[in-house]
Amino acid sequence: MKTLIVVAHPDAADSSTQQFLKASARLPDVAWYELSDDWQADIAGEQTRLLAYERIIWQFPLYWYSSPANLKEWLDSVFTDDFPDRLKGRELGLVVTLGVSAKSFQAGGREQFTLSELLRPFQALANRCGMTFLPIFAIHQFMYMTEVMKQKLLIAYQQYLTMPVNASFQETEAWFADRLQALTEKEPNEDRKRIMSAVLAELTENRSRLDDLLLVLTEVKDG
Amino acid sequence: MKTLIVVAHPDAADSSTQQFLKASARLPDVAWYELSDDWQADIAGEQTRLLAYERIIWQFPLYWYSSPANLKEWLDSVFTDDFPDRLKGRELGLVVTLGVSAKSFQAGGREQFTLSELLRPFQALANRCGMTFLPIFAIHQFMYMTEVMKQKLLIAYQQYLTMPVNASFQETEAWFADRLQALTEKEPNEDRKRIMSAVLAELTENRSRLDDLLLVLTEVKDG
Repeated sequence: MKTLIVVAHPDAADSSTQQFLKASARLPDVAWYELSDDWQADIAGEQTRLLAYERIIWQFPLYWYSSPANLKEWLDSVFTDDFPDRLKGRELGLVVTLGVSAKSFQAGGREQFTLSELLRPFQALANRCGMTFLPIFAIHQFMYMTEVMKQKLLIAYQQYLTMPVNASFQETEAWFADRLQALTEKEPNEDRKRIMSAVLAELTENRSRLDDLLLVLTEVKDG
Repeated sequence: MKTLIVVAHPDAADSSTQQFLKASARLPDVAWYELSDDWQADIAGEQTRLLAYERIIWQFPLYWYSSPANLKEWLDSVFTDDFPDRLKGRELGLVVTLGVSAKSFQAGGREQFTLSELLRPFQALANRCGMTFLPIFAIHQFMYMTEVMKQKLLIAYQQYLTMPVNASFQETEAWFADRLQALTEKEPNEDRKRIMSAVLAELTENRSRLDDLLLVLTEVKDG
């Protein structure tokens, strides 16, 4: 599956959050595309770009409870009347960065409404296009995150970009094994390569033992 | 009460709906302001303009389940961090024009979501500013409206611009009497002036009779 990240940030180069995400998104089959003003000359080119991907992500800071104006401008131009039907069957995800805490976004909270409610227009667009709307990926107060929190964010973000939607336990495990395999192959340090190989073997062994257990359980159930 | 209509339409001069609304909005204490690109030079001027009105209306065609990009661009610039607090106690209304029928906007309908859901970001902004959010004024499929429907729309729109929010029966009646009074004074044709005066007298007479009845009813209730 190929994924496109459309970044709508007025100044992505100067945003530490966007730079962190950009470094995290260096993965096979994942493309990073920052909106500038260049797209206006070639609407058909923008459409062709989108159609080359199965998973499309719009990534932006929340400005007054929606995307910045530049994403809306791009959307109003690129989504011509006939375009939605051509997107059918693809996936639409949102990566939203916020300076406000998660608990503000609830009934009775400071912002009164949930992010799911506020981003309904994007869900409605996905519905209109026949696209699967992915769970919203919200990043609250990146600037207050510890290193450990950022490491967890990196993994969760990479999974959002590349893992099947609402993945099962097996799919999540397979995803980790694949990532570890790729990292092990690229590791130049022989000592670390051996350790990573051992972890991968352990993971695979666990998987195989769990599969055996599952088989036994199924046999017991079936008598 | 003074009302400002901020019109965010990429081509208001060419829209028959907007021209109809513009003609309907020629009322005392109602100002019509079409967004062009001129505002960018003077953000403080835009803020001062807004602060001169108690009721602020944003009027736009629904583009991909939200306002056109030009309103968002204006909003992102004019609503500086300190600005919301200065709007406290005012009213925010939305006049939204749509090419799609009202019944499409419901669970199970073609668009799946209600307008109240889709326009939640504006309600959240009103909440953030401490403004009263008015019921949304939606105009569906203006181009299919008969003359009678347009006359009803004209009155409902004028009421939306100038009448107290969630008006009582008495307030609505007083609004009609005020409007008729103003029209009668301006009427040059003497025959028509006489008829209008008679209708106004009848309205006032009815009002007075209803007030008497109400008084009797209250006395009966109180024993």
